[in-house]
Amino acid sequence: MEKLIRRIIERNNPTVVGLDPTLDYIPAQVKAEAFAEYGKTLRGAAHAYLTYNKAIIDAICDVVPAVKPQCAYYELLGWEGMKCLAETISYAQEKGMYVITDGKRNDIGSTMQAYAAAHLGEIEIEGERCVPFGGDALTVNGYLGTDGIKPLLEVIGDNPDKGIFVLVKTSNPSSGELQDRKLGENETVYAAMGDMCERWGAGKIGRYGYSKVGAVVGATYPAQLSELRARLPHTFFLVPGYGAQGGGAKDVAGAFDQNGLGGIVNSSRAVLTAWKKTGGDGRDFAQAARAEAIRMRDDITSAIPPIHSPAGI
Amino acid sequence: MEKLIRRIIERNNPTVVGLDPTLDYIPAQVKAEAFAEYGKTLRGAAHAYLTYNKAIIDAICDVVPAVKPQCAYYELLGWEGMKCLAETISYAQEKGMYVITDGKRNDIGSTMQAYAAAHLGEIEIEGERCVPFGGDALTVNGYLGTDGIKPLLEVIGDNPDKGIFVLVKTSNPSSGELQDRKLGENETVYAAMGDMCERWGAGKIGRYGYSKVGAVVGATYPAQLSELRARLPHTFFLVPGYGAQGGGAKDVAGAFDQNGLGGIVNSSRAVLTAWKKTGGDGRDFAQAARAEAIRMRDDITSAIPPIHSPAGI
Repeated sequence: MEKLIRRIIERNNPTVVGLDPTLDYIPAQVKAEAFAEYGKTLRGAAHAYLTYNKAIIDAICDVVPAVKPQCAYYELLGWEGMKCLAETISYAQEKGMYVITDGKRNDIGSTMQAYAAAHLGEIEIEGERCVPFGGDALTVNGYLGTDGIKPLLEVIGDNPDKGIFVLVKTSNPSSGELQDRKLGENETVYAAMGDMCERWGAGKIGRYGYSKVGAVVGATYPAQLSELRARLPHTFFLVPGYGAQGGGAKDVAGAFDQNGLGGIVNSSRAVLTAWKKTGGDGRDFAQAARAEAIRMRDDITSAIPPIHSPAGI
Repeated sequence: MEKLIRRIIERNNPTVVGLDPTLDYIPAQVKAEAFAEYGKTLRGAAHAYLTYNKAIIDAICDVVPAVKPQCAYYELLGWEGMKCLAETISYAQEKGMYVITDGKRNDIGSTMQAYAAAHLGEIEIEGERCVPFGGDALTVNGYLGTDGIKPLLEVIGDNPDKGIFVLVKTSNPSSGELQDRKLGENETVYAAMGDMCERWGAGKIGRYGYSKVGAVVGATYPAQLSELRARLPHTFFLVPGYGAQGGGAKDVAGAFDQNGLGGIVNSSRAVLTAWKKTGGDGRDFAQAARAEAIRMRDDITSAIPPIHSPAGI
């Protein structure tokens, strides 16, 4: 998590761009070239995704600290899509970006260890070390309890830069069906999940005051965001739901501490489809994405305390 | 779900073999051949997995109705592993087996729709229909509520054979940290999740009395298994935790109804590593897996009512 926070301070930008490609988001000429070379196939689509992602990364990497590829959109193209995911992650890291793989993975014991090694670590094959996907952080679902989280922390080990984000209070309309249910007079399911994040992160607090165990808390529930910020002082928040889902800069402000840290706000659709609003033919898609990323940065930084390292760092 | 239940009745066997390969499970000669041809690489390991999986499938396909490949072990080999997953699924289906992809996927809206299409459906690429992974059923995590389940049901549509299994009460020791928490006097988090399964499945009840929405309930909690069987009459159960995790035939009996239906019990490690107990050099791994699969079938069928179609079918 340290590297993420360092990048946020360096770029003065607490946002992350979700790399969630769909064929509908990709301009016609990018698709046409890929289909001409590889056919109207999973492979062709995966090549279009990669060209598109690389151009977006090139256009935003000096402005935005991190990208968040959403696994689902890559899985939708089968193994060709997963190859594109690995190549996208590697390219973003080469360009200095922190990569949060949005997989919401969950399982237990050796199975969870496999997910952890797949996305945040490596596998040793008869003495040879191989890196499957190589992300910096992974989103996970904590419904299975500690057995599903401990293997991740074991794989991360002492590496200060890796981290996880556990779903706590998600941004969708129906998130309350389970997450808002009351466990007692003053406790909800989401607060209990948040408390588990603090416990899982205990003893792993980094130099900026946050642990390796972050939480996903939606921008669409600003009151809960502020409540959880106060309740979970060592838990860094990944905040989806800004923009297309309805959350504004004021709604996400509660995620941040007095140093302007504590959260990173995601936007996917608004950045990826910014070109559709310029009146052009799509050839300006990367520049349009950059402009929207800058607009988002300015919008959010205007609503939170100035971003700076805590005293003494 | 219909095809799964039909296969269970045909084979008189309510079990599923988890295809969870690790390099440690695969006999030396299978690995040696793959590494000789493809190197000690992710690709080499993926080829070893595929050879191993195919031999296991060949050995059990006339005895066992279904296989359950665990995504984590394939992701651990990167995109080469995901290619192996797709080929394993396709091979098992060719051999007449029902395939439950164990991915515990979860997300919302169009993202969940992408997971659903990736694992249970297809994607249309400029008029061409492509099948990414092509499983028959998918395990999912319901923490996000209806927004995470509805997209799956839309992709499944009227297809009677496809289905999902939602995590309700998992088999691991720490599952109670959240799942056993009390929501009221007589309700737990897992019971609330179970009730949601019944609601999601309502209106989609098939000819055997079960809906397309199943539940994962662990063999290691027999009391809760019986409690949930009574509470969720239309929800088919996928039951992990038999064998290596400690559950026995008597422990899983509570999953079944008076027709010997209502559940399918998973075993992975005991079947996959049966060859390690024969005293051989591993060349008998497929026959050993078959023998263990038969032993498991006989063990479980001896503890439940005789399997048969409900009256009138």
